[in-house]
Amino acid sequence: MLKDQEFLRIPGPTPIPPSVMRASIEPMIGHRDPRMDELLAHLVPRLKPLFGTEKGEVFILAGSGTLALETSLLNLTRPHDKVLMLVTGAFGERFMKIAKAHGRDVLVHHTPWGEAVQPEDVQAYLKDHPDLRAVIATHSETSTGVANPIADIAEVVKKHSEALMIVDAVSSLGGMPLNMDRLGIDAVATGSQKALMSPPGLALLALGERAQEVLETMDSPRFYNDLRLYRESFKQHTVPFTPAVSLLFALNQALSLIEAEGLEAVFERHRLLRDMTRKGVQAMGLPLLVQDDRKSSWTVTAVRPDPKVASAKQIRTMLHEHFGIVFAAGQGKIKDDIFRIGHMGYVSPSDVLQYIAALESTLALIQKKQPDGSGVRAAQEVYHAWHTK
Amino acid sequence: MLKDQEFLRIPGPTPIPPSVMRASIEPMIGHRDPRMDELLAHLVPRLKPLFGTEKGEVFILAGSGTLALETSLLNLTRPHDKVLMLVTGAFGERFMKIAKAHGRDVLVHHTPWGEAVQPEDVQAYLKDHPDLRAVIATHSETSTGVANPIADIAEVVKKHSEALMIVDAVSSLGGMPLNMDRLGIDAVATGSQKALMSPPGLALLALGERAQEVLETMDSPRFYNDLRLYRESFKQHTVPFTPAVSLLFALNQALSLIEAEGLEAVFERHRLLRDMTRKGVQAMGLPLLVQDDRKSSWTVTAVRPDPKVASAKQIRTMLHEHFGIVFAAGQGKIKDDIFRIGHMGYVSPSDVLQYIAALESTLALIQKKQPDGSGVRAAQEVYHAWHTK
Repeated sequence: MLKDQEFLRIPGPTPIPPSVMRASIEPMIGHRDPRMDELLAHLVPRLKPLFGTEKGEVFILAGSGTLALETSLLNLTRPHDKVLMLVTGAFGERFMKIAKAHGRDVLVHHTPWGEAVQPEDVQAYLKDHPDLRAVIATHSETSTGVANPIADIAEVVKKHSEALMIVDAVSSLGGMPLNMDRLGIDAVATGSQKALMSPPGLALLALGERAQEVLETMDSPRFYNDLRLYRESFKQHTVPFTPAVSLLFALNQALSLIEAEGLEAVFERHRLLRDMTRKGVQAMGLPLLVQDDRKSSWTVTAVRPDPKVASAKQIRTMLHEHFGIVFAAGQGKIKDDIFRIGHMGYVSPSDVLQYIAALESTLALIQKKQPDGSGVRAAQEVYHAWHTK
Repeated sequence: MLKDQEFLRIPGPTPIPPSVMRASIEPMIGHRDPRMDELLAHLVPRLKPLFGTEKGEVFILAGSGTLALETSLLNLTRPHDKVLMLVTGAFGERFMKIAKAHGRDVLVHHTPWGEAVQPEDVQAYLKDHPDLRAVIATHSETSTGVANPIADIAEVVKKHSEALMIVDAVSSLGGMPLNMDRLGIDAVATGSQKALMSPPGLALLALGERAQEVLETMDSPRFYNDLRLYRESFKQHTVPFTPAVSLLFALNQALSLIEAEGLEAVFERHRLLRDMTRKGVQAMGLPLLVQDDRKSSWTVTAVRPDPKVASAKQIRTMLHEHFGIVFAAGQGKIKDDIFRIGHMGYVSPSDVLQYIAALESTLALIQKKQPDGSGVRAAQEVYHAWHTK
């Protein structure tokens, strides 16, 4: 088969659009060059609509999404502060480990993997712990494809507590709406390599007005990710440390693509990709990990095949062998039970039709049956309904 | 003049070779992909010769060089540990700020900017402070062009103390020899954007055997840059967090270029670039900041023009305007007094002849004189002597 062809359909890193690739190899410039000041001044405000904020303050650091999570915690809380961590999968667990590693007093609320947080459960913690400093939630839990009801959680937190609301939006930002200002979310952390269509290596954050004030007086130990240093430098249109210049070039062009499509249209496209994927997968008889459509992420879908029919690994291996399509394995305790489809960033309905058709063929090969086209048909129907509504 | 042409001669970021650019836009792969395991298994051991270590353990994080500095400190020392910081310029000051921000008990030894640390001065501290946990030094101080006598400092430290020796090699690694094993250096930190000819965004570290043991039991708070997590993952040929994939592609190709030239030849080239630059600058009557040739960095040269003749800013501005060549301003307290020439990474003797000739022309234009070619001739003589020795 054609070896030099591959379709990356994992929940990050995601494929890089050609114009973003080209932008990333623009000739290197110094970070004290006026063009870097211009680039930052041009780039940073254009991230605000993605965070759903006008008054928010946006920060860009060289580092992974995990650095963005750690940065939000270190700049808004102190050692021994009590924080409530809502864990719905591997990335909630990671954030919990970050908070514990830094000596925060961590209350952990676990939900079964594949299920979302119930806002009323959060309320109980708020009542029992009026001294909570922060509530931390994951928007799209990349390991399960759950979308937590961030709006409802934020509402409960605002109503019943003074705690700051911190959101991990690594696999959601740019693929699902998240309106920081309207929801009163205090901090949102994400990375460049998911719906933002850029290579990995940029940690992005936005702080709401309350968090901006907290930052000013926050003396917990940190340096590389002390956002006060970034704030000071940015006032002088510069950066405190050498930024990942080529990745900033890339992100700048990726934002141009998002703006050209229109942010609302980008979100709607992701919802369409999600709907096509879920209906297609279900129609070919494969069980979804997340049962409730309303609790499913717009950017990643987890599938839990019946091991009596085919293992997740067998499906992934054959799909790659026959069709060059890469799905991701599971993570943590359900590592081998599921496969995950990333449909975020540089992914179109056309790409979904391709992977649904290829998945259907793969399943038929495993089951030694003729494919009956039901998966593709279901995905097509979603597309058709979308465009005739 | 030709606008779309520029020669980046600053001490980082440095120009990216064409093949490194091309490598950086190889199609994106997932970080759990077997090819990522292969890439890391291929890449990491090839960094060891640059650090001058066989037994050392090499780590790569997504982040700036400053993250590499912070990482070395957090993984080898605890809050309240006493550390001796040898400050010879802006980057020594930065490392000092990192140590203070993290609550280390910091002794600071300052030398005048443009001068190197005297090993005998270090000895006095070691005698007075037998409880020193670490001595931290800068190899090539990017803000002044001083090369500190790391071998002599390391020898003194090993002889008179149990302190760990930590070296900032951000602007030296790959451009100047640094033999960790032979000198008994415990930790070396660097970045991708200097002599390593790659875009900024990778923080690189090597730990010697003693530091590897310290790491295992080091419980100071950290997560994103907890090297124990990287060690555990690397044993399973993977990484704990999404790496900066495109920058790893770039670094991999840059290492191939270094290997093709030969590491010794790469070092010798840098020494030649330094010698050509210093002789050329001196011959045209411009004073060097670092007087002593033996204390001068192989990768960056600072020039302190007589302000009665021309300001550093005037020279930089006209050099860019007429010849598209970018030199860097100074930093910190000598920001406006000097300009700095970066001659590291993707820079050749041919490039030096170009910027020396252009600098000479610029100076003559400012002084309203005919250029007499003395700077170029001096640089040529260095090249000639080098190739006829």
